[in-house]
Amino acid sequence: MSKKRVLTGVTTTGIPHLGNYVGAIRPAVRAAQADGTESFLFLADYHGIIKCHDPEMIHTSTQAVAATWLACGLDPERTTFYRQSDIPEIMELNWILGCITAKGLMNRAHAYKAAVQENLDKGQEDQDHGIEMGLYSYPILMSADILMFKANEVPVGRDQIQHVEMARDIAGRFNHRFKEVFTLPEVKIDENIELLVGLDGRKMSKSYGNTIPLFETEKKLQKSVNKIITNLKEPGEPKGTDESPLFEIYKAFATADETAAFAQALSDGLAWGEAKKLLSAKINAELSDKRERYNELTANPAQIEDILQAGAAKARKEARVLLDEVRDAVGIRALR
Amino acid sequence: MSKKRVLTGVTTTGIPHLGNYVGAIRPAVRAAQADGTESFLFLADYHGIIKCHDPEMIHTSTQAVAATWLACGLDPERTTFYRQSDIPEIMELNWILGCITAKGLMNRAHAYKAAVQENLDKGQEDQDHGIEMGLYSYPILMSADILMFKANEVPVGRDQIQHVEMARDIAGRFNHRFKEVFTLPEVKIDENIELLVGLDGRKMSKSYGNTIPLFETEKKLQKSVNKIITNLKEPGEPKGTDESPLFEIYKAFATADETAAFAQALSDGLAWGEAKKLLSAKINAELSDKRERYNELTANPAQIEDILQAGAAKARKEARVLLDEVRDAVGIRALR
Repeated sequence: MSKKRVLTGVTTTGIPHLGNYVGAIRPAVRAAQADGTESFLFLADYHGIIKCHDPEMIHTSTQAVAATWLACGLDPERTTFYRQSDIPEIMELNWILGCITAKGLMNRAHAYKAAVQENLDKGQEDQDHGIEMGLYSYPILMSADILMFKANEVPVGRDQIQHVEMARDIAGRFNHRFKEVFTLPEVKIDENIELLVGLDGRKMSKSYGNTIPLFETEKKLQKSVNKIITNLKEPGEPKGTDESPLFEIYKAFATADETAAFAQALSDGLAWGEAKKLLSAKINAELSDKRERYNELTANPAQIEDILQAGAAKARKEARVLLDEVRDAVGIRALR
Repeated sequence: MSKKRVLTGVTTTGIPHLGNYVGAIRPAVRAAQADGTESFLFLADYHGIIKCHDPEMIHTSTQAVAATWLACGLDPERTTFYRQSDIPEIMELNWILGCITAKGLMNRAHAYKAAVQENLDKGQEDQDHGIEMGLYSYPILMSADILMFKANEVPVGRDQIQHVEMARDIAGRFNHRFKEVFTLPEVKIDENIELLVGLDGRKMSKSYGNTIPLFETEKKLQKSVNKIITNLKEPGEPKGTDESPLFEIYKAFATADETAAFAQALSDGLAWGEAKKLLSAKINAELSDKRERYNELTANPAQIEDILQAGAAKARKEARVLLDEVRDAVGIRALR
């Protein structure tokens, strides 16, 4: 029986934080180790440049994201790990798919509609004000990413379900109009996805400015943890698990028993300062080896590049076969 | 002093007819021989698939168009002659340009607006009914075609002026936001473009069904010419040059003296049947050697393919250099 192929893309527009680790990286690395699964993971830099027009950030983020996943245990022998921009076949497929994608489908994409709504809310006369074609047409590129490698399953958050459905729609249209070439991908919604809370108790997110960087030094990690909001309760006063985000963050790094013990300690009057030291130590216990590996990798970027190139070579072999089939189907053929 | 670079694309959705020859092929082949000019000519098959979803037509047309241009004297040593789909760098550039192209710019493109108007005229509720993303975003692909090779001049008909202006606009935006990478192209409108009339006196055009195929046999050519409309005047009756499209067609293949003599002969009562024989002979005199070459080429498509591959290799060398510069500018770089 053939393995189920799971494909995931990571945009390269930021530096991974603890929330990315708990919510995406750790579970994906674990899932990639499951039997019966073949995983593809790529750095979506051509998605990155849609919204990020800062070349240094794109470059720095590409390196940081790649190093992070490798440091966190992604095995490039097991997972096909590549950078989107190293697979030019995806860009050709993107164009071909665009030629059979209804414009109306793009009009209904959430990201575009949200941008339009923002313009309307601001009283902008032109509803497309400030919207660029990359944003508008990115569901097509995402379809090319998915369909190129015949992915069976695309694990996404609820906000991305629509895009996988669009990929199915576009694939079906092509298969019907030209030839049965594409595998229809299934959405995989992980209902148990762990959303880490940030320093202020809201979801940890770059846009809220409430993140803890993933691989900062142990000392800086302690400083970050110290910023987690608490109340003014004194040492010795009983504290509830809902009185500071630090309990939720602790839970993400501890076993059930450890978590229960921590809750008990708070209830017994553990000082916030002590609790923060415990949390910091807990996080550090899980990350210190990974941090060391991360630092090794970033000190030698050529090593990361080699890994990405090997992944691209593996991916391109497949991409070439599929693209040739697609080109042939639409009539783009050598003259013989 | 560096040469002026002129770039032309030909879509591959039909078989060339006499109107294409007189209006586009013959003048472009002549222009390519001019000193101080360096010409690029490509088969725009990735534009072709926007509207033509018939794979056999795309394939057949690609061969016919390539063979036609070569048979008509295009010198692949002098002109960089390639097939768009052989240059994957164009597709990458297409995506990158999309990320800095305002959606509003595409909203204003003539071809899209015409399609919307057609929907409105039909009382369609959805103004984007039946419109696909290829059509909507093709000015970006056309910009990539032009900017990839730093074309100085793009000879176009009036209906295409806007697209070259869009390429300028997009190039300027990129140069301003990232780095001065692109050459701004100039539109070149040929006011003296020869528009050949068809069998019925309207412009010769596939959509009117009034064409004469370029390289049909001599016998079939005579048959086609016989279909040119005339009036019922008898042999011996004086005839004006405006009484049948055949005078205009004759003119496109004759010297000024020959044309004057033909007009005189009509005025002296030349029979329409005789006039058609003269016209057919005149066309044949210009085309017979070319037809022979065309038949040789189409009998051996691998020969055409070799020429296209050599052109692609030449073009890709340049494309690679430019694309690397563009990728670097937006932050897509190897890790080192």
